[in-house]
Amino acid sequence: MDYKPFLASRTSRMDASAIREILKVVSKPGMISLAGGIPAPESFPMSIMQDLTNQVLKKYGSTAFQYDLTEGFQPLRQALINHLENKGLLATQNEILISSGSQGGLDALGKILISKGDKIAVEAPTYLGAIQAFNPYEPEYLQMETDSNGLIPESLEQILQSEQIKFVYLVPTFQNPTGRTIPLARRQRIAELICRYDALLIEDDPYGDLRYQGDAVPSIKSLAPEHVVYMGTLSKTFAPGLRIGYILAPELIQHWLVLCKQGVDLHTSTFNQALAAEYLSGGYLQAHLPNIIRLYKPRQEAMLNALDQHFPSEFSWSRPEGGMFLWVEGPRGFDMEKLYQKAVQQNVAFVPGRFFYSQENEGLETMRLNFTMTDEQTIEKAIKILAEVTRKVL
Amino acid sequence: MDYKPFLASRTSRMDASAIREILKVVSKPGMISLAGGIPAPESFPMSIMQDLTNQVLKKYGSTAFQYDLTEGFQPLRQALINHLENKGLLATQNEILISSGSQGGLDALGKILISKGDKIAVEAPTYLGAIQAFNPYEPEYLQMETDSNGLIPESLEQILQSEQIKFVYLVPTFQNPTGRTIPLARRQRIAELICRYDALLIEDDPYGDLRYQGDAVPSIKSLAPEHVVYMGTLSKTFAPGLRIGYILAPELIQHWLVLCKQGVDLHTSTFNQALAAEYLSGGYLQAHLPNIIRLYKPRQEAMLNALDQHFPSEFSWSRPEGGMFLWVEGPRGFDMEKLYQKAVQQNVAFVPGRFFYSQENEGLETMRLNFTMTDEQTIEKAIKILAEVTRKVL
Repeated sequence: MDYKPFLASRTSRMDASAIREILKVVSKPGMISLAGGIPAPESFPMSIMQDLTNQVLKKYGSTAFQYDLTEGFQPLRQALINHLENKGLLATQNEILISSGSQGGLDALGKILISKGDKIAVEAPTYLGAIQAFNPYEPEYLQMETDSNGLIPESLEQILQSEQIKFVYLVPTFQNPTGRTIPLARRQRIAELICRYDALLIEDDPYGDLRYQGDAVPSIKSLAPEHVVYMGTLSKTFAPGLRIGYILAPELIQHWLVLCKQGVDLHTSTFNQALAAEYLSGGYLQAHLPNIIRLYKPRQEAMLNALDQHFPSEFSWSRPEGGMFLWVEGPRGFDMEKLYQKAVQQNVAFVPGRFFYSQENEGLETMRLNFTMTDEQTIEKAIKILAEVTRKVL
Repeated sequence: MDYKPFLASRTSRMDASAIREILKVVSKPGMISLAGGIPAPESFPMSIMQDLTNQVLKKYGSTAFQYDLTEGFQPLRQALINHLENKGLLATQNEILISSGSQGGLDALGKILISKGDKIAVEAPTYLGAIQAFNPYEPEYLQMETDSNGLIPESLEQILQSEQIKFVYLVPTFQNPTGRTIPLARRQRIAELICRYDALLIEDDPYGDLRYQGDAVPSIKSLAPEHVVYMGTLSKTFAPGLRIGYILAPELIQHWLVLCKQGVDLHTSTFNQALAAEYLSGGYLQAHLPNIIRLYKPRQEAMLNALDQHFPSEFSWSRPEGGMFLWVEGPRGFDMEKLYQKAVQQNVAFVPGRFFYSQENEGLETMRLNFTMTDEQTIEKAIKILAEVTRKVL
């Protein structure tokens, strides 16, 4: 039977991404992968998981295994309200929706906001998972320019002046893929612009809690609450396999997100939401976060030191105060794909940066390096190998 | 800020359903609800939940909390292959996808198959959750006629002859809302028709395991494997709050479902999939299913007996051999909405049948009754009240 005629036209925007092929290489035995984007399993609070599950079974019993509200498990929404208050974000229960990971939030926002051909503004480079969520709704992407301080506000203003857009999508803190953070002054400017042009902004903040030095920067949501949909996740500070994300949005948007989610998965796992509620309200997140930071900070330092020591002077890289990634830029015309092919032969993998651009043929000389999954010694070794191969390609 | 201009055009198909309003009434104190469609919490295997979570923590450790394959947790897919083999369904790992509940499967199928305006054929009445999943993809529905034996094959044939359709959607066993099961001879005829017309059929089977008497009927999938996508769930036989469903589909369709799911939620909760894998592979499902049947069978009998005893002779109802619902039909012109309003005043709720039709003004004299959430004595009392109110409305 030929199934192709049965496919929806939107599947033309959902083609097998080349990055899947790249990430397949990663599981080859002996490969040192700086390619992934996932937390280290030793960052999970495994020592308390048994206690947490026992507590949930005792406290909620069969309620934790029953269907629940689409909006989310009430104790988790309450715990998140308290959690967000500490970050200067005020929310009511009606403004919080629990999503199945951040990905579930991105899909839902795409579904209720994007009609075919609608324009949305994204950073260049931007988060690949957002593109994968939005693509089936067939938008057009407008790329906004960035520098070492993230989004350049003038680039946003130019788009707001000349184009009718549905929304702006940003990862302002420790961005994936660059690790960059937009400083306060720029955030204020961005907030002012979206208010002036009455635009909608999606602020995706999966990494904000992973800060290894420096002071937290206020969210754009806190600067322009009515114009910003804020997204968070427990994937980096609890456990990604539980698939718990959340959206803080104005009530009318929340209303549509709830109707959307009803059709997509009814609600996120009650049991996992109950575990997350205990993790937050019991103070476990606060207690455990320093452990995660103690794990990642030296890994990031090891990677920065190795780059400083081994990499050719024609290359530059970001020096983030947190997150999971570094962004390396080679000289104009450098062939990062070629480096990738040769590096993999030497058992070191990374992601060529071009995959993070919504347009073709951009970022050809860039790469994303992840430091959370590998110990310091191995990172030092991998960067040394990468540097050697780089010199050969140069 | 006015958010309406930001909404995607597809939201016009996602409006707040009146059934939500109906189900809100259910939570009123003192209300006896025959309206819901959810399993009794006392049907969950709570006595083994602690053991299951302990086993998962011990066996899989941090792997159960890490990101996992979009396709699904390998041990669960393997356990499902064995489970399905017992039902005469042969599958490879590449043909099984774990979805976030059946709802996640329905959304994914809608997303990869339905372009705006595409026609899909559904039973009249049909499952409301499927309509909610498909609606955002803006299909047109063609209604197929049913009788007490479910779908009438001639009605399907008429559509296949005259229309280009994307797929047929059926709940052939203990259907929601009617409780009806399509007998083998009709299934063979349906299988033959979809093969002859090279059509695609989605067979949704959430209730098949809840059989209280009679013999299991082969799935349509087993009769036309290449033309059928089969969907199952553990929501009725394990715990709905864990959100574990699955899809058995030909490989090319599976390929697109995986790409789709990557953008929607990356994967279903690893922890919950690991719990489900232990539940199936440890023989717990097989051991526990008789308990669920022992709980529901007398409830269904109590409801049938009460209907026989109290309801006016102008009414008829289905007598399913399993599932969660009965379907009651009043005489032509009977105003079920009026009955609903009056019944709620007497603290008995149900769902008027018209909500289960994809077209307006159909099924006005029908109602769906759920018997899983209420004990026998309360069912008897509720049906007696309903019968009294019915006589007043007649």
